[in-house]
Amino acid sequence: MDPSSQYRLEDIIDNVSTDCVIFGFQQSMLEILLYKRALNPCKGMWALPGGFLNKGELIEEAARRILYNTTGLHNIYLEEIGVFDQIDRFPEWRVFTIGFFALISPENDKLITSNEYTLEAKWFKLNELPELAWDHKHIVDIARDKLKTRVQNKPVGFELLPNKFTLPQLQTLYEVILDKSLDKRNFRKKLINMKLLKKLNEKDKNNIKRPADLYSFDKKRYKTLVKQGFLFEM
Amino acid sequence: MDPSSQYRLEDIIDNVSTDCVIFGFQQSMLEILLYKRALNPCKGMWALPGGFLNKGELIEEAARRILYNTTGLHNIYLEEIGVFDQIDRFPEWRVFTIGFFALISPENDKLITSNEYTLEAKWFKLNELPELAWDHKHIVDIARDKLKTRVQNKPVGFELLPNKFTLPQLQTLYEVILDKSLDKRNFRKKLINMKLLKKLNEKDKNNIKRPADLYSFDKKRYKTLVKQGFLFEM
Repeated sequence: MDPSSQYRLEDIIDNVSTDCVIFGFQQSMLEILLYKRALNPCKGMWALPGGFLNKGELIEEAARRILYNTTGLHNIYLEEIGVFDQIDRFPEWRVFTIGFFALISPENDKLITSNEYTLEAKWFKLNELPELAWDHKHIVDIARDKLKTRVQNKPVGFELLPNKFTLPQLQTLYEVILDKSLDKRNFRKKLINMKLLKKLNEKDKNNIKRPADLYSFDKKRYKTLVKQGFLFEM
Repeated sequence: MDPSSQYRLEDIIDNVSTDCVIFGFQQSMLEILLYKRALNPCKGMWALPGGFLNKGELIEEAARRILYNTTGLHNIYLEEIGVFDQIDRFPEWRVFTIGFFALISPENDKLITSNEYTLEAKWFKLNELPELAWDHKHIVDIARDKLKTRVQNKPVGFELLPNKFTLPQLQTLYEVILDKSLDKRNFRKKLINMKLLKKLNEKDKNNIKRPADLYSFDKKRYKTLVKQGFLFEM
């Protein structure tokens, strides 16, 4: 199949693309969502959802369009992580790609698992990634670093959680992203100071012996903190 | 003068450029260095040092080349702040620019004040900026925000200081960048914990009545902290 059938060359900016690393948190692990390509170039390989910019389109608009077309998701947390400009990153000609990461909650968000561009979608643990197309492994590595910094100055970690969560779940999320153990008492004290959590009148039934309290987060307060920035030193 | 005389069109990527916000700290103020353009477009206007990417050149290489050609500076701290992609930011055709900020110490670094592309160079206080070419004011605003975040997770603030500095100077620098007063005792305690400062056997003679101790920073330790990241919660 001719790769140019994906788009009309006159409609796109052929040296600017976007690629998106989608992070999800499930079974106490940080994972990323990859798609197996149905079309050339790199047909049959696992890759990040990505594509060229349309003329007259902003980069974030392109990222959201491509993300929606590939995954069916919209209105999700998206953040630019920088430009990838290695001379031969796209062997056919020089293409600059602007990387993003997206944070989703696999439990909340329903995904498309295949479409005309992809054969299959699959969650992968970060230490068990398959071989990826182009420089996508490098983009994943940079996204991982940025996520680590980001959760320390904005409360975006919450985007990865289901609507109702327990404090142990929340702590595990931060431990997995920051890649270190956190002191339980200290962690809870800091959370309480942020005034971000709402305790619900419900318990998590997964642990039958000791059902944990469920929490949600205060969306109004959350928005203020995302805007202001905060420092969540652990 | 024909603007195309600045470069040969066949050598450049005509839709990708870089622009750089140069921060300096002097007389207890954070300032930026602007250049008055000698050539069209925007001849006679104040602007950030910037220009198109050469073919086969990485974006950071281009930023360093342009910075060197404009200012005479090399080997300075440079950090990408993102892509600026507004459709009409460059009215003639669509140009994506990758923004950077550079941190220099006006006391340490000698600057070129004019060359074939510029009529004049001048430091401006952030609240007294002249009208800027294109979207350069927007790039300055974003750079300012990024600097505020950055000094809290990397010790890059030190790039703005002369080789020898006093603790009040250092505190003022952080207060100016973070735009808030800091508690003196707390600030010093945190600095001591970072083990970054070396006390010199010299005094600052500017304050005759109470000469302050001079410090330099431990470059080896500094490099480790820049690499690791740190959290400098103030």
